[in-house]
Amino acid sequence: MAGNTFGQVFRVTTWGESHGPALGAVIDGCPPRLPLSPGDVQLELERRRPGVQAHATSRQEPDAVEILSGVFEGRTTGTPISLIVYNRDVKSQDYDALRDVFRPGHGDFTFQAKYGIRDHRGGGRASARETVARVAAAAVAQKVLDRDHVRVLAYTLELGGIRAEKIDEASIWDNPFFCPDLEVVPAMAARVQEVKARGDSLGGLVQVRVRGCPPGLGEPVFDKLDAILAQAVMSVGAVKGVEIGAGFGAARMLGSEHNDPLIPGGFASNHAGGILAGISTGDDLVVTATVKPISSIARKQQTVDLEGRPRTISVGGRHDISAIPRIVPVILAMVRLTLADFLLRQRAISWP
Amino acid sequence: MAGNTFGQVFRVTTWGESHGPALGAVIDGCPPRLPLSPGDVQLELERRRPGVQAHATSRQEPDAVEILSGVFEGRTTGTPISLIVYNRDVKSQDYDALRDVFRPGHGDFTFQAKYGIRDHRGGGRASARETVARVAAAAVAQKVLDRDHVRVLAYTLELGGIRAEKIDEASIWDNPFFCPDLEVVPAMAARVQEVKARGDSLGGLVQVRVRGCPPGLGEPVFDKLDAILAQAVMSVGAVKGVEIGAGFGAARMLGSEHNDPLIPGGFASNHAGGILAGISTGDDLVVTATVKPISSIARKQQTVDLEGRPRTISVGGRHDISAIPRIVPVILAMVRLTLADFLLRQRAISWP
Amino acid sequence: MAGNTFGQVFRVTTWGESHGPALGAVIDGCPPRLPLSPGDVQLELERRRPGVQAHATSRQEPDAVEILSGVFEGRTTGTPISLIVYNRDVKSQDYDALRDVFRPGHGDFTFQAKYGIRDHRGGGRASARETVARVAAAAVAQKVLDRDHVRVLAYTLELGGIRAEKIDEASIWDNPFFCPDLEVVPAMAARVQEVKARGDSLGGLVQVRVRGCPPGLGEPVFDKLDAILAQAVMSVGAVKGVEIGAGFGAARMLGSEHNDPLIPGGFASNHAGGILAGISTGDDLVVTATVKPISSIARKQQTVDLEGRPRTISVGGRHDISAIPRIVPVILAMVRLTLADFLLRQRAISWP
Amino acid sequence: MAGNTFGQVFRVTTWGESHGPALGAVIDGCPPRLPLSPGDVQLELERRRPGVQAHATSRQEPDAVEILSGVFEGRTTGTPISLIVYNRDVKSQDYDALRDVFRPGHGDFTFQAKYGIRDHRGGGRASARETVARVAAAAVAQKVLDRDHVRVLAYTLELGGIRAEKIDEASIWDNPFFCPDLEVVPAMAARVQEVKARGDSLGGLVQVRVRGCPPGLGEPVFDKLDAILAQAVMSVGAVKGVEIGAGFGAARMLGSEHNDPLIPGGFASNHAGGILAGISTGDDLVVTATVKPISSIARKQQTVDLEGRPRTISVGGRHDISAIPRIVPVILAMVRLTLADFLLRQRAISWP
Repeated sequence: MAGNTFGQVFRVTTWGESHGPALGAVIDGCPPRLPLSPGDVQLELERRRPGVQAHATSRQEPDAVEILSGVFEGRTTGTPISLIVYNRDVKSQDYDALRDVFRPGHGDFTFQAKYGIRDHRGGGRASARETVARVAAAAVAQKVLDRDHVRVLAYTLELGGIRAEKIDEASIWDNPFFCPDLEVVPAMAARVQEVKARGDSLGGLVQVRVRGCPPGLGEPVFDKLDAILAQAVMSVGAVKGVEIGAGFGAARMLGSEHNDPLIPGGFASNHAGGILAGISTGDDLVVTATVKPISSIARKQQTVDLEGRPRTISVGGRHDISAIPRIVPVILAMVRLTLADFLLRQRAISWP
Repeated sequence: MAGNTFGQVFRVTTWGESHGPALGAVIDGCPPRLPLSPGDVQLELERRRPGVQAHATSRQEPDAVEILSGVFEGRTTGTPISLIVYNRDVKSQDYDALRDVFRPGHGDFTFQAKYGIRDHRGGGRASARETVARVAAAAVAQKVLDRDHVRVLAYTLELGGIRAEKIDEASIWDNPFFCPDLEVVPAMAARVQEVKARGDSLGGLVQVRVRGCPPGLGEPVFDKLDAILAQAVMSVGAVKGVEIGAGFGAARMLGSEHNDPLIPGGFASNHAGGILAGISTGDDLVVTATVKPISSIARKQQTVDLEGRPRTISVGGRHDISAIPRIVPVILAMVRLTLADFLLRQRAISWP
Repeated sequence: MAGNTFGQVFRVTTWGESHGPALGAVIDGCPPRLPLSPGDVQLELERRRPGVQAHATSRQEPDAVEILSGVFEGRTTGTPISLIVYNRDVKSQDYDALRDVFRPGHGDFTFQAKYGIRDHRGGGRASARETVARVAAAAVAQKVLDRDHVRVLAYTLELGGIRAEKIDEASIWDNPFFCPDLEVVPAMAARVQEVKARGDSLGGLVQVRVRGCPPGLGEPVFDKLDAILAQAVMSVGAVKGVEIGAGFGAARMLGSEHNDPLIPGGFASNHAGGILAGISTGDDLVVTATVKPISSIARKQQTVDLEGRPRTISVGGRHDISAIPRIVPVILAMVRLTLADFLLRQRAISWP
Repeated sequence: MAGNTFGQVFRVTTWGESHGPALGAVIDGCPPRLPLSPGDVQLELERRRPGVQAHATSRQEPDAVEILSGVFEGRTTGTPISLIVYNRDVKSQDYDALRDVFRPGHGDFTFQAKYGIRDHRGGGRASARETVARVAAAAVAQKVLDRDHVRVLAYTLELGGIRAEKIDEASIWDNPFFCPDLEVVPAMAARVQEVKARGDSLGGLVQVRVRGCPPGLGEPVFDKLDAILAQAVMSVGAVKGVEIGAGFGAARMLGSEHNDPLIPGGFASNHAGGILAGISTGDDLVVTATVKPISSIARKQQTVDLEGRPRTISVGGRHDISAIPRIVPVILAMVRLTLADFLLRQRAISWP
């Protein structure tokens, strides 16, 4: 009902605020006997953490994960898996100025409107930091996907108008933008520096490709694979659009162009993005997310305070210039969670 | 689990196949004492039915709805509301040729892959006809929205590359394309005729605007308002992309452009599409859906049969040239269902 | 949320009022390719219908079921199965006297308190007639159980203080009380006649035994097999208690008596009723339900009307003297629905 | 799906094993702005901890709870509330002997059958220690109930055949058996000592009474108030039966005895236990649970090992002689969780 749980069989509930003592996830419904160690989860958290990227936040987050339940002698037991990451580098006083004022583009106003109370420190529950728990949980989801050899890639397709022209998988994690085309990385870096100097921020596109997705996943009519992927990806802060396969381009294609002909062994093309009628075709899944420019900018902006009086605000501090690339492993995580769940949902109705 | 239920408090379960005896919806969780008559539902079904539109299907569907439960002396009772529409104009033999062959762009292949069996007649459960039940249920959802004076508009923003340049609400239902700009209607009609003559099909964009949506709706972090709207709209067949507010355009904006300044009484702009951090702002909700060109085309296409052998197919018959405009009331319906549910979800945690 | 859906994977939603046009059930999540015909469902409905039993209601209910979706050429398709039974023998005017008055022991008062409106005709949604839909749905659930050779028995253990002293399966459906001990049937019949003559009503005990239940079903910690069985059985009107295995007797046993010793191949006794720590042991499940005396009695009772003014009432008409035996197939149905769901839930996390 | 979540609006997910690092609960759906401090939760945990009771476990569990999220400046925020209790007094080596052998009456065999793996230390997830998380969560639920002045009592009605003859609320927490009748406490103590000396264990009855429950709670037809109470209470380990109001006694009553006459302002009696047709009447709720004798006994028992070979076992160690009285606050907790959820569910459909 409240919306902090995702999935039907592989169910993840996340909790935690940016400046509370900790964040975490509880996974209920993970199959038993999967190998799982804290190191498996830690590896994924590192990717979410900017580390050396010059353009990314200067806030250091060790993000050491602990597994508090559901694993016995290195294997899952089928009982709930509780993952926890304590917040260590928390400077709440940085946010005192935001107690009474709403940052444009953020959830400050809407959380106040919804709950009549909000933890103003760093965005509280609405902080991007909340996604630590998603990434941690998705590392467990990948263990489920591993059994069926499903592999999920995510990368920056476009940043500030600079677009990757090729998808070179091997390059993705080797550059600070998680860009699959090393040739455009310098242009991206230059664009970031330019905008940073002006105290502004950038958006872009993130794309996910799933290799090895078996046919038959997805639950018509409301829980179609594309529908739940859309929910999953749109639930990530800063995402304002989701498209499948040819996506928005499909609006201007003809049926004879868009339809993917079937050929023995598969499909001759993949405009559908691997999904027909809400069910996977066995071809690669292709999902693209639009990421808005990050809302925290150094430039002065017009806003109001709790009493509705006009104010100006400049959101400085330890902020990124774009949700990209830190959002890349988060979107990847949401796709993993979605697929692990659908794999198990399909298993429930499949007879041996 | 299986995906035929939508909503948490206002829960709708739909059932029925294109060429079965009937289709229907069961609504569980509708508040009691709302006025409801079959006529309220019938009105919405008429809009989904093409009627006079020259370009639309020639199949006649009277679609008379009956309310079988949950209403007593003209008011809802709080018990499940069962809506049923019998299929009358069913010609199953038209589809005998499709028993062994997969239509490109349709769910024929994926339903077979998922379930190992399929009702091939008219697409079975994957038929657009399934949406009759959604539209009927959404007429009840609107009764919930009426109490809070929430109004949902939907219209064709673009068809075959022809785009509405203005949004004139009064015109929407007065032209065969549900286009809010009467001046471009002749161009749309010409485009449709041209493509129809070539045995091909068209896609486009459908937009929804919600007026009067109160602030505070949406359930972070996974059931954000935009996330569930994305699921809802993407769950409609032929939709391949969903964007909120500035949507895909946001990818190339700067933060200083995209952020909506707060001013006393509201926001100075609405690039956010009425949603911040997954919660409604009180401003208009704006959702745009990409609709792919319809998959059934008269032109010959390459495909395979159940045994994987190459075949060619031409899907003639009583088909539309585009999912637009019939998809417009369906997308509208999904937004209504989403909002009615979130209104009640918010009520559950709101103290008087 | 509203409570008309049961199950997680094998999900049943029922709808309909006693004196509305029809009642029905929608099953979402039934595995595909199971054989299913209307006759399979009809057979179960007949058992719920008293027929020749002298003591049972004189109201005749043909209860012809139709399958409106989800079955193609005699097999389930994996899409929702809609079952409908039209109400034919409806005499609403019989109930006009009850519009303003609350019958003791019935839901009249509580439905009014909850919803502020109620369909007073025959109890509306609170009527025992609602269980037609449960029994119909459970006939489909049995198809799932059939694949694993799970067999569910239900019978009258006690009626009006007359108790069956043996469990002879073959006799159950061959006597008007669904009693497994033909020797006590004459005493039950005499007791019924005696109480009927006094315008009063009787309660009793109904027991369910499940043979062939595989070990491993049930989902700790809240959806334990015994917990959901308790919900399932207690959700049947007139049931006021549920016990598992030795049940209430366990309160006065010693641990050394109650513990079932494990022996090679199973257990030496079954005081646990086939469930340990909420998971099936592989032994027979044993569930006993207490059924209160039926609330509609001919004798004069004290009550109030809608305005709270004192009234007296005598609920005559076409009523049974006990919920037993008609409740027997209903309780059996709820156990079937529970087990079919748990079988599929277990499958979701079981690796081949 | 997996069963570690309870509730629809006020949703609690628990996690943790007896001998893992910690146990905890995540509450999603708690209304905002309720006062909440760790002390509120700690108080309830103390009652679950036997402390001075001579007959209770000698294991000391400080059980200090921490609130990790969802509370800001002493009030709930509407975001998930994460509660954690670290396990401190853990002696895993005590259980090494149980790695390969199944204790009679415990979940050892069934967990192995279900998951193919189990944490054998202290019963793992099946340990009574799991209920720490339930009691902690229920302390938050009580905050919701407080707003509507709903009070929940629980007490030992019977222990080893010694029955409380009166319900003196003030005495409940003042004796080591949580017995509401101080006069029978010495007999209970004697019975416990006698059975302890023989290395055996005892069962009994626990009763819950809810005062101030408003009419209208409960969701027909499957989520009736009594049905979900039955699930809630039966989900507590060692409970083998649940009855409402007159309960099992109802089987031998006449309708004229059992029916509670309505009188101006309420009911003349309460055999129904405060529930009619699954909805609360406004009268006291009365729920009675049968508690089996604790399974861990010092006496030698027959069992098998993992390979099915015969073994004998004596489960000594730091064990209680009965689940009573420690189970009393756990059953109380489950009723609180149930009622808080139904209060909010009812709010969702109630118009101001």
